Amino acid sequence: MTHPTEPFPFSTRLARLRVRLAEADADAVVVTELNNIRYVTGFAGSAGILVVSATACQLLIDGRYEEIVREGQRLGVIAPATVIRVKKYDATLLEVLAAGGWRRVVFEGDHTTVAQYSRWVAGVPHVELTPIYDWVESGRIIKDAAELTILRKAGRLLSAVAQSLGQWVAVGRTEREVAGDIDSAIRRAGFEKPAFDTIVATGLNSAYPHARPTDRTIAKGDLVLLDFGGVLEGYCVDLTRMAGAGRVAADGQALYLAVREAQDKAIAAVHPGCLTTEVDWAARQVLEQHQLGSAFVHGTGHGLGLDVHEAPRVGPGDPSEAIRLESGMVVTIEPGAYVVGLGGVRLEDDVLVTAEGQEVLTNAPLDLLIV
Amino acid sequence: MTHPTEPFPFSTRLARLRVRLAEADADAVVVTELNNIRYVTGFAGSAGILVVSATACQLLIDGRYEEIVREGQRLGVIAPATVIRVKKYDATLLEVLAAGGWRRVVFEGDHTTVAQYSRWVAGVPHVELTPIYDWVESGRIIKDAAELTILRKAGRLLSAVAQSLGQWVAVGRTEREVAGDIDSAIRRAGFEKPAFDTIVATGLNSAYPHARPTDRTIAKGDLVLLDFGGVLEGYCVDLTRMAGAGRVAADGQALYLAVREAQDKAIAAVHPGCLTTEVDWAARQVLEQHQLGSAFVHGTGHGLGLDVHEAPRVGPGDPSEAIRLESGMVVTIEPGAYVVGLGGVRLEDDVLVTAEGQEVLTNAPLDLLIV
Repeated sequence: MTHPTEPFPFSTRLARLRVRLAEADADAVVVTELNNIRYVTGFAGSAGILVVSATACQLLIDGRYEEIVREGQRLGVIAPATVIRVKKYDATLLEVLAAGGWRRVVFEGDHTTVAQYSRWVAGVPHVELTPIYDWVESGRIIKDAAELTILRKAGRLLSAVAQSLGQWVAVGRTEREVAGDIDSAIRRAGFEKPAFDTIVATGLNSAYPHARPTDRTIAKGDLVLLDFGGVLEGYCVDLTRMAGAGRVAADGQALYLAVREAQDKAIAAVHPGCLTTEVDWAARQVLEQHQLGSAFVHGTGHGLGLDVHEAPRVGPGDPSEAIRLESGMVVTIEPGAYVVGLGGVRLEDDVLVTAEGQEVLTNAPLDLLIV
Repeated sequence: MTHPTEPFPFSTRLARLRVRLAEADADAVVVTELNNIRYVTGFAGSAGILVVSATACQLLIDGRYEEIVREGQRLGVIAPATVIRVKKYDATLLEVLAAGGWRRVVFEGDHTTVAQYSRWVAGVPHVELTPIYDWVESGRIIKDAAELTILRKAGRLLSAVAQSLGQWVAVGRTEREVAGDIDSAIRRAGFEKPAFDTIVATGLNSAYPHARPTDRTIAKGDLVLLDFGGVLEGYCVDLTRMAGAGRVAADGQALYLAVREAQDKAIAAVHPGCLTTEVDWAARQVLEQHQLGSAFVHGTGHGLGLDVHEAPRVGPGDPSEAIRLESGMVVTIEPGAYVVGLGGVRLEDDVLVTAEGQEVLTNAPLDLLIV
């Protein structure tokens, strides 16, 4: 049990949920998404259910977590919810719902399966069960001071890992070996773990945006795409840099320069009030100008927080469905271009939307690292 | 793109799904669980939807995966499904459902959210949408020859990693350092990645079954719980061993001996026709005899396969809801006992149910490793 850098405002987060309850005229909300539970309570297990009413806050956990939660509550790193030990989650939840005497209960429609919903409806037929959406996520999308302290630190630590890439990327080494070195360095840097499966894609493999590390050895002239992240106190950061094994051919260099220009323009576009589609377009327009529009096969970025992919998505689409950036949002900016038979390039940084514009949380050199 | 050890029988798996369709008198099934999609098609991305009818097999993927799927199909490691590139999954799925001209479509009730279901119902109101359960999982629970080849190999490789634990566990080293060494060794052994966050819990921390590695340093007399796993060609294996830093006190040794006896009895109980609750009871009974029944706060084990926790669950409960073991099932056997203020012990091996009884896939020494 480690202490966070500064305390999370659990009571504020809980109060916001109760505002929603009151606005929706509902008696209780069932929170099933684990990182939503973590956000509201600090509990970070692999199973659990949170039930919040105007007067109660009940955390359903199984025996594996009982002691760790009580200890966390003593230390103040887990919110003072009423702990209810379950044997079977659905059965205990139904008991809690019945005991609450509630008539209108809402649940997370994005995080409840049709199977769960069916069992609940059958179990408490007198309770009106209604899906709600984004109640917790709408809070998570704006990072508070405690979260920003962690994300800033995480951005610096991950950038420091990136500064060492030149020690690991070398002709004759395999993608898998390099990925292993990066993962070890992520832990040594103080992260709990990598935020996702590290991508090391070399030569023609780099044309596949989500390639997995193989036993391919790096050869002279290869483009090398390195995409990795770390989790610090639950919060995820994410970085992509490019290396070249000796002299990279002119078409590979052109790809790199186009993506770099696209990333630069997209970062500059980040400011409060801007639509996510506008940020995406800032990158996409550059790549289209370089005849690489169809080579940019994914969105420009995604939100970062307790999830490595969370709101807001920064991608193309209908502006009426886009999200307007606000101060406190943290997103990746990671345009890429992938050409089968040639290779691929992606550059990724983590960017905080500030009142004035943007603050880049990752500060590793962007230059093509020649090894 | 690596070749599997031997080809997976994708056509058999697809045919089994079509038998289910015919039995249920349904026109098409929508598969949304990613490892179910992987099982049927070999596609292992982080997003995708599979739609299977009597005559069609359509794999919906986004641009990130298009080239890698086509390459996989050329190599025969991805089933010859019709690839449909999507921009938005729900929108394209609704187009596919409408174009199919189907009247009765079933979907995975355990892997479809209320939000998805609501959108589908609104999008294709003339289609009757009905949840189904375990159609793919009921095949996955019995491992075929290709899967057993991988799981046997993975069990040997993970056991070899365990043989090296003595190199890393030492007085003065932190839990986090030891976990990092184990993770590196898992990759060096040939695994794609750890199967879950490695647990290294020392001293009093070992009393928390799902403790996360901290910066606590190992001290003389500590019990050290080491729980780690690896993913090989998508398949997960999982192992727990115990170490002692020098002389472990008598109460810690007694805990170890009780858990070892419980594990031994539970492994011996594994045979075809046996109920999962009977296997659990074999372990639980031993711990109850040692007055450690309430210290055994979790189930005895879980199935292994593409998921590190899958069916069958081996735990206590109503025998009428238990699963009868069949040849080809692979489960962990991992009883434990956790005493706050003293420490915890867990021992875990991976066991294949055979026609004759059981085959233990992991073969690392079970003795308390004294370092």
